[in-house]
Amino acid sequence: MRKTLPSRVTVYEVGPRDGLQNEPTSVPTAAKVQFVNLLAAAGLPIVEVTSFVRPGSIPQLADAEDVLAQIDRAGETRFTALVPNQRGLDRAALGQLDGIALFTAASETFSRRNTNAGISETFERFEPVVRGATERGLWIRGYVSTAFGCPYEGDVAVEAVVRVSRYLVELGAEQVVVSDTIGVATPRQVMSVVDAVSMEIEPARIALHFHDTRGTALANVLAGLMLGISTFDSSAGGLGGCPYAPGAAGNVATEDLIYMLNGMDIESGVSLDRVVAASRFLSTVTGRMPSSRYYTAVSG
Amino acid sequence: MRKTLPSRVTVYEVGPRDGLQNEPTSVPTAAKVQFVNLLAAAGLPIVEVTSFVRPGSIPQLADAEDVLAQIDRAGETRFTALVPNQRGLDRAALGQLDGIALFTAASETFSRRNTNAGISETFERFEPVVRGATERGLWIRGYVSTAFGCPYEGDVAVEAVVRVSRYLVELGAEQVVVSDTIGVATPRQVMSVVDAVSMEIEPARIALHFHDTRGTALANVLAGLMLGISTFDSSAGGLGGCPYAPGAAGNVATEDLIYMLNGMDIESGVSLDRVVAASRFLSTVTGRMPSSRYYTAVSG
Repeated sequence: MRKTLPSRVTVYEVGPRDGLQNEPTSVPTAAKVQFVNLLAAAGLPIVEVTSFVRPGSIPQLADAEDVLAQIDRAGETRFTALVPNQRGLDRAALGQLDGIALFTAASETFSRRNTNAGISETFERFEPVVRGATERGLWIRGYVSTAFGCPYEGDVAVEAVVRVSRYLVELGAEQVVVSDTIGVATPRQVMSVVDAVSMEIEPARIALHFHDTRGTALANVLAGLMLGISTFDSSAGGLGGCPYAPGAAGNVATEDLIYMLNGMDIESGVSLDRVVAASRFLSTVTGRMPSSRYYTAVSG
Repeated sequence: MRKTLPSRVTVYEVGPRDGLQNEPTSVPTAAKVQFVNLLAAAGLPIVEVTSFVRPGSIPQLADAEDVLAQIDRAGETRFTALVPNQRGLDRAALGQLDGIALFTAASETFSRRNTNAGISETFERFEPVVRGATERGLWIRGYVSTAFGCPYEGDVAVEAVVRVSRYLVELGAEQVVVSDTIGVATPRQVMSVVDAVSMEIEPARIALHFHDTRGTALANVLAGLMLGISTFDSSAGGLGGCPYAPGAAGNVATEDLIYMLNGMDIESGVSLDRVVAASRFLSTVTGRMPSSRYYTAVSG
């Protein structure tokens, strides 16, 4: 096993987007900007800053343009945003993005409830977005949400995950994000699903996105590492939560992920202390203690 | 990997001992008895009920004899207690134990500060205990604490872990518990240490004991499973904490462990719902929410 582990991984920070969209309290624009700047200063290579969904559907991120316009771009961090459709791309175009993220699902019911569109309909919406993004030279990632289970349908077929992943790549996504939206995955399942997706898409183009809702996120990361996956999503402090399990933990915490990678001599280029500082700043704004175990151990 | 994973594991419940000895609030004897009974009813095969250390040094467990005398023994659960010395064994003898646990360390400084005895001195103390326990037909496990790091010395040599493990076996311990007392281990280290200990002691006699202080406990369990280890310690609710990191998480939560094992089709014979019920009961006594992620997801 040790021979096959990647020596370097890319940590894709989703706190400002996936984290903040699930936070109960609204965070002022200036604080979001400061949070993103602190994450960039921590050496995170890529930060998903916000989402250009309809402001009415996710009011927490209604200030997407403003945040993107105000963040500091002096460093090497690349910045992305979730873009659901043409209208979102038009808004995003103002913001000097390095890349965009598309969002679909492996579960038909989840797709309908979450985006008001069936899976194939989301692909139709993506086509002009991908065209426009490609023209602007933007990098594209595509989320396959509910890849390990759905809050409405329960089990999700591996074939559905593979099919949606393949569609995203055919459409033009450079990276497919196999996502455990509700935090139900366990390592053996991660192996099955990643094995199956890897038959169609090279591991270097697969990212894994885990929520720590049931405590298994880092074990799932380990399973992914063993299959040669080298991009993992996380959110500073374990920000966010799960709309399907009130009070539960959110994305796997960037601190916990970096601590494990450091301990395994896997490089990420991220400063653990500075991620803690970013989380500490945000927790003073939200008034909530980060759910990151590492954060609690060093700050408690 | 999947071929080599054990199909069944033994979950060794340490909540009433390792958990409660680190809880800030004192739990009444009757509540401890009820907690242990609920754990046994959940199907946990073995529960470490208490510790026969000097009551002055761990007042939380000063009622060891009473708890042991009052628990329900109708089921198949075996009950153990930590026994540090001859005096402890004399007290324990009254309590119809199925087994005892010895406690030493891989770090000389930790041993001195924690037990007021160097490592070799702890072995001298163990000799009469092992003799007495063996005469009574008691099963014996031995903790090798600070096997992955020490709060005073920092790094701990793998050779020290192997040496102490071998001593314990030579002394008469049926099981050696390689323990991450302060919750610093990461999977690659688990593999190195378990690999080294396995050269001397068969994997069936090795148990792993992780604290989730930095969130890596289940990833470490996965690493252990992949090396064929099939006994893991945990505490219901993630009870306890870490005296070296106030506010931090305690032992890996039994709920989180069982959730992961269930998801991987690894049998434990433990009812997840009933462990949650045991944790819920205890949290009403302590007034503290369990740190278990699974518990929070289903109860939050």
